[in-house]
Amino acid sequence: MLRHMVLLNWSDEATDTQITEIATRLRGLTEVIPEIQAYHCGPDAGINSGNHDFAIVADFATADDYAVYRDHPAHREIITGLIAPIAAGRAAAQFHL
Amino acid sequence: MLRHMVLLNWSDEATDTQITEIATRLRGLTEVIPEIQAYHCGPDAGINSGNHDFAIVADFATADDYAVYRDHPAHREIITGLIAPIAAGRAAAQFHL
Repeated sequence: MLRHMVLLNWSDEATDTQITEIATRLRGLTEVIPEIQAYHCGPDAGINSGNHDFAIVADFATADDYAVYRDHPAHREIITGLIAPIAAGRAAAQFHL
Repeated sequence: MLRHMVLLNWSDEATDTQITEIATRLRGLTEVIPEIQAYHCGPDAGINSGNHDFAIVADFATADDYAVYRDHPAHREIITGLIAPIAAGRAAAQFHL
């Protein structure tokens, strides 16, 4: 099992409406990319200072399944159209569970 | 359920032995901190460039349970004694599943 993790920071101009739409659209990918075994995302809970603003965690059976998600047009559309315009930072990793 | 995520970069001086010890010691926290419901960590799989070097994901029933882990002396000892000396960057978030 491969776990994919992304942490994002948003620009000061990002709105709650934009962030909610991103979360909704990302979660909807489970309906079009069957290679996704588990998918969770959402805003930082505000417990600690210095955190990133938004987290994404997705699980895949194999690295090939992850690549299907990474490169899927429905995913790229969300990245290009919704995330990139308001992203101010990104950290990521994939690791074997 | 609260999911805690950390991504770390290591300094150029970090050795595989040190990183393996950190992973082993972190996983061992599940035996001394019963508030941990799930715990996974490991090195980046090397699929994408620009990734962080190491990932940690832990799940807790509540934010209070997460705080027990965050502040537990056995955890702080790993951070201070093993992680901090070789860490070159950190990104984190906690979010509600």
